Amino acid sequence: MATMPSGHGRATILDVARAAQVSRQTVSNALKHPERVRPDTLERVHAEIDRLDYRPSTAATSLRGQRAGAVGMELTGLGAHALSDALAPFLVSLTIAAPEHDCHIVTFGSDGPDPTLQRYREMWRSRLVDAFVIMDTHHGDPRPAWLLERDIPFASFGRVWDDPSFTSWADVDGRNGVAGAVDHLVSQGYSRIGYLGWPQGSLVGDERRNGWAEAVTRHGQTHQGPEGNTIQDLAKAMAAAEPLVDDVGIGGAIACASDVLALGVTQVLLRRGLVPGRDVGVVGFDGSETARTHDLTSVAQPYRSIASQLLTQVHNQLTTQRRPDHGLMFEPTLLPRASTLRQSSAPHPQEKS
Amino acid sequence: MATMPSGHGRATILDVARAAQVSRQTVSNALKHPERVRPDTLERVHAEIDRLDYRPSTAATSLRGQRAGAVGMELTGLGAHALSDALAPFLVSLTIAAPEHDCHIVTFGSDGPDPTLQRYREMWRSRLVDAFVIMDTHHGDPRPAWLLERDIPFASFGRVWDDPSFTSWADVDGRNGVAGAVDHLVSQGYSRIGYLGWPQGSLVGDERRNGWAEAVTRHGQTHQGPEGNTIQDLAKAMAAAEPLVDDVGIGGAIACASDVLALGVTQVLLRRGLVPGRDVGVVGFDGSETARTHDLTSVAQPYRSIASQLLTQVHNQLTTQRRPDHGLMFEPTLLPRASTLRQSSAPHPQEKS
Repeated sequence: MATMPSGHGRATILDVARAAQVSRQTVSNALKHPERVRPDTLERVHAEIDRLDYRPSTAATSLRGQRAGAVGMELTGLGAHALSDALAPFLVSLTIAAPEHDCHIVTFGSDGPDPTLQRYREMWRSRLVDAFVIMDTHHGDPRPAWLLERDIPFASFGRVWDDPSFTSWADVDGRNGVAGAVDHLVSQGYSRIGYLGWPQGSLVGDERRNGWAEAVTRHGQTHQGPEGNTIQDLAKAMAAAEPLVDDVGIGGAIACASDVLALGVTQVLLRRGLVPGRDVGVVGFDGSETARTHDLTSVAQPYRSIASQLLTQVHNQLTTQRRPDHGLMFEPTLLPRASTLRQSSAPHPQEKS
Repeated sequence: MATMPSGHGRATILDVARAAQVSRQTVSNALKHPERVRPDTLERVHAEIDRLDYRPSTAATSLRGQRAGAVGMELTGLGAHALSDALAPFLVSLTIAAPEHDCHIVTFGSDGPDPTLQRYREMWRSRLVDAFVIMDTHHGDPRPAWLLERDIPFASFGRVWDDPSFTSWADVDGRNGVAGAVDHLVSQGYSRIGYLGWPQGSLVGDERRNGWAEAVTRHGQTHQGPEGNTIQDLAKAMAAAEPLVDDVGIGGAIACASDVLALGVTQVLLRRGLVPGRDVGVVGFDGSETARTHDLTSVAQPYRSIASQLLTQVHNQLTTQRRPDHGLMFEPTLLPRASTLRQSSAPHPQEKS
């Protein structure tokens, strides 16, 4: 793609200064340090910048080392992998946080059979980005080692499980999050509290499961209660939820590793003519659109704080070439909704049809 | 953000040429015209490019006018507005199509109280983008006029309703899409076919509704059948679906303006102990994750084709300063799933609990 043809001609900073009857320095201040300019002058300068369509030259600012950097974010798999509910809001958070960190976000990805690293290599070689943010690393993920070998700055949403010495990460405390969800269920008066999670070996999943196990033990649930495992798929979650619902029974509750799993539980309840919340409590994890849409209580990830922290880490790597001393763990927030309200105002289906 | 510190030193094209024992031109060809280079040479050159971490200088390529351009895409409102189900997959499609159009996608947005245009102005002034792709314009949307006044290249996903003379758009044919959904419902043997849409005055919605009305008339449904209107919200969609389900009855079906509305219909069916598909047919619109998750038949938007077309239009504006003679309408595709299969294999809830 060619660069933008000069539509209205190329206004210079001097053109703006003359038109607004101020010095060149005042125009520069208006753009970079507006607090140093009197409000009426600021307004006049911006009116002329608008009228003349003046845009500071990228090349010039780049030479002064003030050019905003670009951070690459891979979108491949959006909607297809286990954390898809998290990717969209995380990308929005990164995008919104970027200007405060003097950078912008460039998305990239492929849906072809390319090897994972090929698009990273292309983005890096073409100098379209100065750094990457990655998320959802897993055992055997080739990206962290590949980036480290090349001294390419990056930060990770989620610990890098294969490399405990890597410190440039921010993550959510899944164990505390699920433990807090169990506390909430107990405080709402639910008796037996089961858990629906992912198959063992998913480290994110294991951590969330441990949060449940520790909390129910702490609350004196002598037998740990029913537990089910399934993948991130509604139909499979429904199948896995059936025996759990049988086990916890009316007045019981199920804490889940994700909002999709929680949705599976509620769909099973609906099919049985039961009302989530009033009859059986359900808590999800992610604070996703799915949870909001279905009025599900959920443990919400602090995407804004995590995005901001990762961009700070990347910025520090670029300016000082230093990584943080340790990663940062953020506490999630429980969003209580109808699925954990025992006094549900929803009419019972039998009253309705 | 500073530019990337040179980790491994700055390898030049000459370093690569020497190491791979080829000419400088061959290295250049390997990067830009790999088909001109013998496979074994190509492999050797790429091995050295990798080993030396050679990255062509942006400044140099930019001076040759070959620098990739950036197209801005606003993310504000993801998850909050009526078309959120469409934004995420559309962004993925744009991102994946971008390299074929020699450009990349830069996201921007704000969740603050900024006026709509402020972030567009900032992105444009800072020269971070050469053009924009906008979507979901509505009556009174200030963006098209603002961009046109400034000769800023842009293309729109969806017609620009306030400016019929604007031609740089690509859209999905919602009328044909819903009409095709009705044809499908008739072919599956559903008798009475109702419609759940958005309140009148939403032009996208009116068009989809007309597709339903024309198709049911064409199929000889003398009385047009029940029709309901609601906003894009699950609880409200469920409330609006109640009388429609009563009216079409067992063996009837409901076509919907969106997947969220279709989800509302299925939730009402589940609460009544009815099975979507077997008892009442349901079709959504968007081909979203929501539809996939809930096994809903849906009219899928051709995001890939639309994204590619819009990037072509933007590219033409940048290179020839010309807009297309007319916008381009794409046909959506019906994705049949369980919610329109009359012979559903799902067990009836009464058999289960």
